[in-house]
Amino acid sequence: MTQNIPGLPLLLMAPIVEQALREDLGIGGDLTTIATIPEDLVSSADLVARQEGIIAGLDLAELTFRAVDPLITFERWVTDGDAVSKGTKVAHIKGPARGLLTGERVALNFLGRLSGIATLTHKFAKAVADLPTQIACTRKTTPTLRSLEKQAVRVGGGVNHRYALDDAILIKDNHIAMNGSLSGAVKSAKAFAGHMTKIEVEVDTLDQLREVMEIGVDAVLLDNMAPETLKEAVKIVAGRAITEASGGVNLSTIRAIAEAGVDMISIGALTHSAPNFDIAMDFAG
Amino acid sequence: MTQNIPGLPLLLMAPIVEQALREDLGIGGDLTTIATIPEDLVSSADLVARQEGIIAGLDLAELTFRAVDPLITFERWVTDGDAVSKGTKVAHIKGPARGLLTGERVALNFLGRLSGIATLTHKFAKAVADLPTQIACTRKTTPTLRSLEKQAVRVGGGVNHRYALDDAILIKDNHIAMNGSLSGAVKSAKAFAGHMTKIEVEVDTLDQLREVMEIGVDAVLLDNMAPETLKEAVKIVAGRAITEASGGVNLSTIRAIAEAGVDMISIGALTHSAPNFDIAMDFAG
Amino acid sequence: MTQNIPGLPLLLMAPIVEQALREDLGIGGDLTTIATIPEDLVSSADLVARQEGIIAGLDLAELTFRAVDPLITFERWVTDGDAVSKGTKVAHIKGPARGLLTGERVALNFLGRLSGIATLTHKFAKAVADLPTQIACTRKTTPTLRSLEKQAVRVGGGVNHRYALDDAILIKDNHIAMNGSLSGAVKSAKAFAGHMTKIEVEVDTLDQLREVMEIGVDAVLLDNMAPETLKEAVKIVAGRAITEASGGVNLSTIRAIAEAGVDMISIGALTHSAPNFDIAMDFAG
Amino acid sequence: MTQNIPGLPLLLMAPIVEQALREDLGIGGDLTTIATIPEDLVSSADLVARQEGIIAGLDLAELTFRAVDPLITFERWVTDGDAVSKGTKVAHIKGPARGLLTGERVALNFLGRLSGIATLTHKFAKAVADLPTQIACTRKTTPTLRSLEKQAVRVGGGVNHRYALDDAILIKDNHIAMNGSLSGAVKSAKAFAGHMTKIEVEVDTLDQLREVMEIGVDAVLLDNMAPETLKEAVKIVAGRAITEASGGVNLSTIRAIAEAGVDMISIGALTHSAPNFDIAMDFAG
Amino acid sequence: MTQNIPGLPLLLMAPIVEQALREDLGIGGDLTTIATIPEDLVSSADLVARQEGIIAGLDLAELTFRAVDPLITFERWVTDGDAVSKGTKVAHIKGPARGLLTGERVALNFLGRLSGIATLTHKFAKAVADLPTQIACTRKTTPTLRSLEKQAVRVGGGVNHRYALDDAILIKDNHIAMNGSLSGAVKSAKAFAGHMTKIEVEVDTLDQLREVMEIGVDAVLLDNMAPETLKEAVKIVAGRAITEASGGVNLSTIRAIAEAGVDMISIGALTHSAPNFDIAMDFAG
Amino acid sequence: MTQNIPGLPLLLMAPIVEQALREDLGIGGDLTTIATIPEDLVSSADLVARQEGIIAGLDLAELTFRAVDPLITFERWVTDGDAVSKGTKVAHIKGPARGLLTGERVALNFLGRLSGIATLTHKFAKAVADLPTQIACTRKTTPTLRSLEKQAVRVGGGVNHRYALDDAILIKDNHIAMNGSLSGAVKSAKAFAGHMTKIEVEVDTLDQLREVMEIGVDAVLLDNMAPETLKEAVKIVAGRAITEASGGVNLSTIRAIAEAGVDMISIGALTHSAPNFDIAMDFAG
Repeated sequence: MTQNIPGLPLLLMAPIVEQALREDLGIGGDLTTIATIPEDLVSSADLVARQEGIIAGLDLAELTFRAVDPLITFERWVTDGDAVSKGTKVAHIKGPARGLLTGERVALNFLGRLSGIATLTHKFAKAVADLPTQIACTRKTTPTLRSLEKQAVRVGGGVNHRYALDDAILIKDNHIAMNGSLSGAVKSAKAFAGHMTKIEVEVDTLDQLREVMEIGVDAVLLDNMAPETLKEAVKIVAGRAITEASGGVNLSTIRAIAEAGVDMISIGALTHSAPNFDIAMDFAG
Repeated sequence: MTQNIPGLPLLLMAPIVEQALREDLGIGGDLTTIATIPEDLVSSADLVARQEGIIAGLDLAELTFRAVDPLITFERWVTDGDAVSKGTKVAHIKGPARGLLTGERVALNFLGRLSGIATLTHKFAKAVADLPTQIACTRKTTPTLRSLEKQAVRVGGGVNHRYALDDAILIKDNHIAMNGSLSGAVKSAKAFAGHMTKIEVEVDTLDQLREVMEIGVDAVLLDNMAPETLKEAVKIVAGRAITEASGGVNLSTIRAIAEAGVDMISIGALTHSAPNFDIAMDFAG
Repeated sequence: MTQNIPGLPLLLMAPIVEQALREDLGIGGDLTTIATIPEDLVSSADLVARQEGIIAGLDLAELTFRAVDPLITFERWVTDGDAVSKGTKVAHIKGPARGLLTGERVALNFLGRLSGIATLTHKFAKAVADLPTQIACTRKTTPTLRSLEKQAVRVGGGVNHRYALDDAILIKDNHIAMNGSLSGAVKSAKAFAGHMTKIEVEVDTLDQLREVMEIGVDAVLLDNMAPETLKEAVKIVAGRAITEASGGVNLSTIRAIAEAGVDMISIGALTHSAPNFDIAMDFAG
Repeated sequence: MTQNIPGLPLLLMAPIVEQALREDLGIGGDLTTIATIPEDLVSSADLVARQEGIIAGLDLAELTFRAVDPLITFERWVTDGDAVSKGTKVAHIKGPARGLLTGERVALNFLGRLSGIATLTHKFAKAVADLPTQIACTRKTTPTLRSLEKQAVRVGGGVNHRYALDDAILIKDNHIAMNGSLSGAVKSAKAFAGHMTKIEVEVDTLDQLREVMEIGVDAVLLDNMAPETLKEAVKIVAGRAITEASGGVNLSTIRAIAEAGVDMISIGALTHSAPNFDIAMDFAG
Repeated sequence: MTQNIPGLPLLLMAPIVEQALREDLGIGGDLTTIATIPEDLVSSADLVARQEGIIAGLDLAELTFRAVDPLITFERWVTDGDAVSKGTKVAHIKGPARGLLTGERVALNFLGRLSGIATLTHKFAKAVADLPTQIACTRKTTPTLRSLEKQAVRVGGGVNHRYALDDAILIKDNHIAMNGSLSGAVKSAKAFAGHMTKIEVEVDTLDQLREVMEIGVDAVLLDNMAPETLKEAVKIVAGRAITEASGGVNLSTIRAIAEAGVDMISIGALTHSAPNFDIAMDFAG
Repeated sequence: MTQNIPGLPLLLMAPIVEQALREDLGIGGDLTTIATIPEDLVSSADLVARQEGIIAGLDLAELTFRAVDPLITFERWVTDGDAVSKGTKVAHIKGPARGLLTGERVALNFLGRLSGIATLTHKFAKAVADLPTQIACTRKTTPTLRSLEKQAVRVGGGVNHRYALDDAILIKDNHIAMNGSLSGAVKSAKAFAGHMTKIEVEVDTLDQLREVMEIGVDAVLLDNMAPETLKEAVKIVAGRAITEASGGVNLSTIRAIAEAGVDMISIGALTHSAPNFDIAMDFAG
């Protein structure tokens, strides 16, 4: 397999693939396939898109089939990030028929989820493609699959926000509430942060924003503000920090939000509510 | 914690919770919280529904906070399966403020996904509540989270189909295609199956159905059939097998499908496309 | 390696092999072999049966040697399920001498246990080979090795009962005792069970059997009944459920039990008390 | 739990217990118990010996029940190493009925195997109790369970041979064959061994024994020698090394072997062929 | 245990402690302690510094003893970060004597390594305490222990550089060499980096520095420059980026380097070459 | 890869390598490399010693690069145990440039630590090379890396003491203190020890030594004795046990200690305080 998805090494994918397969194999393995398919039968199949969208997760699908049976070959007709139509043959797999059938569901589960994320990300990204605003994901990812889902967002044309709690500081409403002071929290963070750690602060009002900008931070998260307020906020920031909007973002609202001039729009739905991408395995001979 | 979700022992949940937290903590832990919250601050918060629906995953949320800090207490105002409205306080958590903030996102990620599944399942189940037809999930679950998602379906009022490839035989289109003979595949399966293993066969046409029923199986999966065809199919089966419909099921079509008289309707979307349930953690003092 | 044991994917075997080898290697590795065998010595050996019986576990033995040193080749003279005599050469292994010696004990431990199970299963199965009765194993398996042992039972000519607690319902004496009502327990189970889950009930008396059959279940476990009582039970069931006998089964009693007309005889001893199969590794040059 | 088995820390037992339970729980958990037992039912049961013998594995049984439900209490009427009769109540367990039933089989599987080993070891040890000869186990243990089985041998009155390949040097027939020279192999081992590592050599003939004793080692393994030959061997060794007999050892032959004057008799069957100890869980109210 | 080391949750420490203990326990456990100490003996001991320095790793030591035996209590006389002298009692532990002895070495190994790192860090930090320059660690940590070692650096008064490859961009000499162009590499990084990801570039010469500053980055790593060159570099940067010096840093040179005006000095030796801190466990009754 | 380090099988190394890489990759992978290096660029580099010393850990380095990208080739110019000078090219690696850069730090971290240990061990061993005294390591190893570090000691010319608590008995001061009697502890140990387990006792005074020698043990650990006292001790022992000195050993004192005639000198610093060996990866085209 060529490791052609930037940023997702084999070592991060393989254990997830194995965990998914063990979950499906149980103790006794694939009874249906053992019962109905001769051991020495060689067969082939196509992975075929049943809808249009952006493909992501081909590495996972390939790893799945190869973990089931190393004799299976996996030929890609498209690569991650390619747009496909309903009916597009995405990949051709060939090898022991039992392995093809045993790996089918897990491989499709990976492709369905990750292509779903890439496809939804792409829709948002496309809606603002002519503007400088970027589309970002959040930490609202599926537990245990964050590395895969962050990658699918990149594949779909989005950018990644924090990977984990240790790679940047993002002071949110509850931090401020529990700390008791917006300025106090921001100043503590600035004193604590390492030189390679950026600091972002979530604000709900322009007053909060002004308070933050007086101290100075790397980025501000403008939460649930109307486009007009966002415009005002962008003016207040005046290039001194990155501006990120979040809250109430959907395909109807994103254009207005972006036009308010923010640098980033972050959308939890990219990873927590992307509908599954419809893809199937069709017998090919 | 009371282990009050039938069927999901602590032992199946704990490793997933720990994996999710490690994914979020990285090497350095929660920098924001360390930087902004005094170590000895005790605080409390509420988990509050932001939409109406069915709650699922409270055990996971509780396990998450306790894995972060065993001193956190988790008081439930509702239990899994309860219907909530926008604004319902679902649980009250109290303890070291740092732990509350560090566990927040992972706990909400579990609750959002699982309550989303329970809520969607409930919608389908409610739509046919006056009919004998049951709503079932499939193996189209999120890789590594099948046990949790199957449980959320039960919580929402659905029933579980196979858990894994080794607990029942389900002969699908690709098995038939690769075997080359519908009857051959079914007969092989009957010869192979242990006495505690049920056999189901997917059919696309009434002719296939008649062929299967001549041999006899425990259940038939009627794939992508129109309600009229389903009615015909139910007549052909005539109580000799369980009838399960799948394909093209949504909230507009389910009623007609159920009224065709099938015993079960299985829906992949319950687990692969349920939108996240909106729930948040609000500072309480 | 050809994956020629139906139902036991590499993915289920490899972690057990690695765990077994790590248990044997400790921190320092195989001191004896390092001390006495030159690093570049290539050698070969035969795995030789020291008794007659049925071979099982060749995949495990091969995986063991290859995990120790991928350069070792493993040539099989027989396949799992073959009957061998004392002195039969089962496999020929060749490669770095150190690897052959380091892997020897773990490989033989797998072959000894699994061939022991296959051999004992075969004795029972042969005793009733002319009758329709099948020989089944139970959940009385060695902790952590259930998948391997269930497979060895299949290899020896037996069939598998439940793999795990989630793939069928088997209401046993303690369930009935704690529930307080035989009928109550059975009815609860029928209400709960998914459409792909079979239900079996253990009964100790014909009265209990009649009570169960009035409700109707998929199978009945007739525990510790004398052959005459079993005959009576089979009559009562009259083909409406699968009949399984258990308790007091040994090679002297099995014939009479089978002749009583039960469909299955389940035997815990297949997996919990099978004597080790005697097999050794002989230097071959 | 009191950690009262010398030498087997919680840390070595807990992962095996969890692995065994997960193997049994699958994805869906204990369907039978969920279906038939109310969630809030508290019950109690006794673990009762169904045969006479030596109990081993109580820690494992207790850990099993507590891993299923921490609310279960486990009261011991006997301790590991105690002799019991048919009908002896070994332990009393009390707590949520579901947990008792879900843990039953795994707990009994541990007790059955480990008490079986202790019981068989005890029979051999008792047969030579008036002689100085000790009974030892080998590395012919069940893959993944060596620590538990070695412990059960100690509990039954035997002593442990090597735990793993790195804690002593034992030059066996195949080492000599592949090395090509008995003396050469022994001399290499003496040059290599650390100062805390003992060296033992397996010999088949008295000539080999003399060759070894000229070089000098810590122990000799006298393989498959008749009692008269063993006596001769003991004379040749003359207290300069520990003498260990192996091969052809059973309850009929052990007395004669021990009377030949060897220090140790090692028996693979202790761990690889001990019949399961019959023990059950009986409902107590 | 109070979780009083900011940033190192239990969840990151516990698996490392368990891995370390299993490594030391082998299959048979602590033979010496079992052999020489009665099971019911309760005893106590002090952890006593044998040199002056800064203590780090008390959580690890406590977790070690509690993993061996939960009955052991661990009372701290100092906390992580405290300066101690030769003879300072660091902690008092009390409980089952066997547990105290079995946990001793692993607990001391953690304390020795982590206090060694904290002590060395403190020496460097103290040397420049009156200057604004900060002392930072690198990714030259012990494989598998990075989280602990990064934490020990913080405890000793240093700050953390990147935790992992995914939390900041640091373009080093080999990246530039393989890319072929300094400017090209920096520009690619700027185009790729997410909005929360800082970018640092390593430069060896002032010319390289000027080239980088024309493009603009968050930080520059001034590698192996003499104090005079560093001064020049600081002037060139002129506050537009964080300046970090590395290479040739030791306790004799650090003062001059810091006085050159750099913001940070990073030192691989903090984690890869800190001498062990001498600490012992003394019997206390 | 040739498995040419006696005693360290692939199976013990691979999980540590993977753990180290995952620790460095985080969720997002190597951002710097992805950002600056084209995916299809092939490059090569040399691992070059920056100081003189003894190389150890080449297997780990090779495994690291291959785990990152199996297409990377690793050509060794030296083997473990070879002495190198500043500038010696140790290995040549070639393959996808991204993989070379992503694996660089982890590979160097292994080589730096293990070559550091081998180099320090070699210095001690060389200092007494003309004497029969051997240099041994202790259990003062880095938690989780004991197998690698013990191996590096062997590579450097030292010998290994105990690997773990279960492979020999070493009665230390705290065992004696808690037991309450030196003789009592030694006698208990002799009664308990298996026939393949050596017994060593730590003594602080010649009186203690005489007390131990009256009972008889395999080895004595003479702790913190001056060379003259050691000489006296060696006389008292008179060849009846192995004599091991420890405490206060450094390169200035070792000669005198060895000349006192002890068989072994054990040094914790070999593994707990060896300075990192300076080695770098240089771009080669």
